[in-house]
Amino acid sequence: MVGGVAAGMSAASRARRLRPDVEIVVFEKGGDVSYSACLLPYFVSGLIPSREELVQYEADFFRNERHMDIRLNTPVAALDPVGRTVTFQGPDGGDASLSFDALVLGTGAVAVKPPLPGIDIPGVATLRTLADGERLRERVESGGIKKATIVGAGYIGLEMAEALASRGITVTVIELLPTVLPTFDPDMSELVERELLAKGVSVRKETSVEGFEPRDGSSGLGYVLAGGQRLEADLALVSVGVRPAVGLATAAGVELGATGAIKVDARQVTSEPSVLAAGDCSEANHVVTGRPVWIPLGTTANKQGKLAGENAVGGSARFGGVAGTNIAKVFDLEAAQTGLTERAASKEGLAATSIRIRSLSKAHAYPGAGAVHVKLVFEPDGGRLLGGQIIGREGAGKRIDTIAAALHAKMTVRDLADIDMSYAPPFSPVWDPVAMAALQALKKVRS
Amino acid sequence: MVGGVAAGMSAASRARRLRPDVEIVVFEKGGDVSYSACLLPYFVSGLIPSREELVQYEADFFRNERHMDIRLNTPVAALDPVGRTVTFQGPDGGDASLSFDALVLGTGAVAVKPPLPGIDIPGVATLRTLADGERLRERVESGGIKKATIVGAGYIGLEMAEALASRGITVTVIELLPTVLPTFDPDMSELVERELLAKGVSVRKETSVEGFEPRDGSSGLGYVLAGGQRLEADLALVSVGVRPAVGLATAAGVELGATGAIKVDARQVTSEPSVLAAGDCSEANHVVTGRPVWIPLGTTANKQGKLAGENAVGGSARFGGVAGTNIAKVFDLEAAQTGLTERAASKEGLAATSIRIRSLSKAHAYPGAGAVHVKLVFEPDGGRLLGGQIIGREGAGKRIDTIAAALHAKMTVRDLADIDMSYAPPFSPVWDPVAMAALQALKKVRS
Repeated sequence: MVGGVAAGMSAASRARRLRPDVEIVVFEKGGDVSYSACLLPYFVSGLIPSREELVQYEADFFRNERHMDIRLNTPVAALDPVGRTVTFQGPDGGDASLSFDALVLGTGAVAVKPPLPGIDIPGVATLRTLADGERLRERVESGGIKKATIVGAGYIGLEMAEALASRGITVTVIELLPTVLPTFDPDMSELVERELLAKGVSVRKETSVEGFEPRDGSSGLGYVLAGGQRLEADLALVSVGVRPAVGLATAAGVELGATGAIKVDARQVTSEPSVLAAGDCSEANHVVTGRPVWIPLGTTANKQGKLAGENAVGGSARFGGVAGTNIAKVFDLEAAQTGLTERAASKEGLAATSIRIRSLSKAHAYPGAGAVHVKLVFEPDGGRLLGGQIIGREGAGKRIDTIAAALHAKMTVRDLADIDMSYAPPFSPVWDPVAMAALQALKKVRS
Repeated sequence: MVGGVAAGMSAASRARRLRPDVEIVVFEKGGDVSYSACLLPYFVSGLIPSREELVQYEADFFRNERHMDIRLNTPVAALDPVGRTVTFQGPDGGDASLSFDALVLGTGAVAVKPPLPGIDIPGVATLRTLADGERLRERVESGGIKKATIVGAGYIGLEMAEALASRGITVTVIELLPTVLPTFDPDMSELVERELLAKGVSVRKETSVEGFEPRDGSSGLGYVLAGGQRLEADLALVSVGVRPAVGLATAAGVELGATGAIKVDARQVTSEPSVLAAGDCSEANHVVTGRPVWIPLGTTANKQGKLAGENAVGGSARFGGVAGTNIAKVFDLEAAQTGLTERAASKEGLAATSIRIRSLSKAHAYPGAGAVHVKLVFEPDGGRLLGGQIIGREGAGKRIDTIAAALHAKMTVRDLADIDMSYAPPFSPVWDPVAMAALQALKKVRS
């Protein structure tokens, strides 16, 4: 295995479970295995107090309990898929190599670091690895940060806006595009923007960042140059997305897909029969379009890793595909989506329409009922469901899984409306918001 | 329409929407339309402060806005499906009759009142109608109730146990069967029983109630005779289930099914072409077994009512069937189920096995993560999913809808494990508890 985080360790663990006898070597370029990157914003905020809680299992657990050879701080330099060997720096500093029967690439993704003036000055940070998180938390706890600018209003950017604001830091979010959470349709992400503003976060959209400038006599940041202005900040967090880490693969002649991530078949095998790939470095088939996509998510990494581990030791398990389901908490809102947005459907050349409803998280009369907005995207002819987005108060977001199930089952909006969903006053109105949205969608379906 | 609650008013409203011109008459034996019976426990507890919040729309709303002739306190005495007339008591006290083109029976269900000695003394109550709820709340608010006994540990019994306990009343729950929530498998309902005990509610199982006795000089209750003992109580709430209200239908020759509820086809039409039935008085097809069942639920009543209203005015909509999905809050636990329990599957003659896991409602490191128990019932050969049960802390229960969607889609446990479910630390572990249960189930599937 190359890569010892979600995909890599899932693969290694699955292979070990199926085959107690095979030799398993894990190369990890960093100093930790099996940590959960999604927890990092909550570690920086202090909600998760200690580093230990981020690392579900330490390397020694895998060494002792699962009999794996875990090599931390050991980047792989080269890979020969035909000769079936990897080359890496050995413990003595010299080149070493190892032969393999099958290799799983779980090299993940790296944070995009735009080539801007000042991007390397101390006050500019990214958040991708555990080490990034530890540095950021230290800096926040030192108390020197009063104002922070977050560049990029995706999930991690907004989770970090909440994390930093909860530490009493004044936060400005800058986004190049016209909306926050650009993976949502604008009529939905607008609700999240309102929540940010209500919680005191400044939002500057359609604003490009031109660079960063140190302040005189400061060891941190001074100014973020954005939209022709100089914004003062003690910290700039650059969170403009990730790209698949495919350097090793391409150098070895492993084919990439159109998305720029490693091309794999349903068994996670790459263009080289001896090499499998899984997780954020690889593509996956989309259940709605049937086409390969690159949607890096921890859930997918775990699933693909598990399959790759099984198939690396002789199995032939097939991946069920992705719907791109994701969820995030942004202050008191939950934002979730699955499948295609209206915009994405139109890019795919699908005739899509949509419906958007506002309902409640509990029965109208039950105390604490909060707004739940559901948008469904579907084909007007026949009503095939293409995707869904949910934004609302506590309890709203996880309803997205019901829509994801409907996408996997290739349901129409009528099928979705027909699902016998649960009801009791503390949990939903009699018509669950998802069912209510499906009912409304039906009115726009030509059968 | 006969019956002006969930099914009846859904039918009337749908018919009006489709046909602005038809004459719609609603006969309701009680004094209210369109109230939500599921809210009653929260009205008795005071969580819902006023009666007005229980009634989403008053009769005058339907009269004025939807142009319906709503006749409250007007039980229908007889029905002639061939002559297409109903007979009822007119406003002058004499018999009156009305002819119809189509009639929808939404007569609901009535609380079972066992023929026990003392069942009619003032301190013994049932909770089914709005009037029952108002009486009970008045009694609770008078302050005279220190000890209450609830006979029957189904959903309503347990919701009422919570409601009364929240008012400072000492509550004992008596159940004839060996478990509380008898619609769950015992290994799951046991968790609910533990919660009741932890919250100070006494539970007496396998205990039959033989009668009720007044206390000397008291206008209320004195003793509940149960399991050979005399238990002191100021109130006994008898909540031993409901039965379909089918008197009018049977007298008119409308056929009942084997369940004792009115037999209907997928268009909600009864054995008499002029008469439709919907809601708690009628059967529905089960999506897992394909056979008629009687599972009275507000969600089904609304759906069937809507269909019956459409079909009463010339439509031909078909009902998608029920999975028997339901959910309840019992103190700090959420209990939900869908499809068949292991016991029910075995009664159906299906070769069923099950898996039960304990997971968390949030990522393990995220503050406030609570236990979530998921049980899946499935066929060992091929893995067809038959049902699911979830019991856990806040956020656990609504996950049942994902399993319900899987049942409607006839998924196997492998299909369920393949669903791309959402993940972020505030919402679930990387493997959602439902997906984790499906993964575990896979190990027991012979393919």
